[in-house]
Amino acid sequence: MASWLDKIKWNNEGLVPVIVQELDTGQVLMHAWMNRESLQQTRNSGKAVFWSRSRQSLWTKGESSGHFQLVESIKLDCDFDTLLITVKQEGGMACHTGRHHCFFMTLSDDEWQTTEPVLKDPHDIYK
Amino acid sequence: MASWLDKIKWNNEGLVPVIVQELDTGQVLMHAWMNRESLQQTRNSGKAVFWSRSRQSLWTKGESSGHFQLVESIKLDCDFDTLLITVKQEGGMACHTGRHHCFFMTLSDDEWQTTEPVLKDPHDIYK
Repeated sequence: MASWLDKIKWNNEGLVPVIVQELDTGQVLMHAWMNRESLQQTRNSGKAVFWSRSRQSLWTKGESSGHFQLVESIKLDCDFDTLLITVKQEGGMACHTGRHHCFFMTLSDDEWQTTEPVLKDPHDIYK
Repeated sequence: MASWLDKIKWNNEGLVPVIVQELDTGQVLMHAWMNRESLQQTRNSGKAVFWSRSRQSLWTKGESSGHFQLVESIKLDCDFDTLLITVKQEGGMACHTGRHHCFFMTLSDDEWQTTEPVLKDPHDIYK
């Protein structure tokens, strides 16, 4: 196993949280999880590969939608337990709801207000 | 309990991951965790309050360093299980190592290279 992977403090499920930031805009697109294998695949392929906790399987972002994430950098934080990756977002949409990014609810007057438009109907993304 | 807090899918420890992004620069400063009480306090005070998993206690960011985070927005993602907050970072440093942000190790040639300078000696921050 590559030693750079051993520097990471994986949690008791063998995972680390990953923040995905768009290179061009600085927008935080999404938050996901990686295990060793997904990070190694990300490193090797240059496309973001995560671990799906709900499906308990490797998940190449974009495998269904075509909206792949091309990885420009991989950074590790001071606690060695969180990754920040910068990406080029193919298709301009990271969210399965057809929005640019996943953080589309903003707290306002103690309500979650939708503050991002749907760019494409999910039925047309996941045919 | 306020209903906006009930919309959040807290994990089995009663926590959600929180991404902290600097408003002016777009820089992702750090990644931390909140429980209900810390999020309510953040909402009420306008300063970021987290849950320290290592100390098992509420933790107002900046309480030791003076480097408080003034919260400009609180956003929730499509899965209702991750928060993104934008902040003004007092003192210009979010990291306990004296750096601007916590993601200062960059993967390069299968090594983690330090790519951010120390702005202030931690001994001078935490006196």
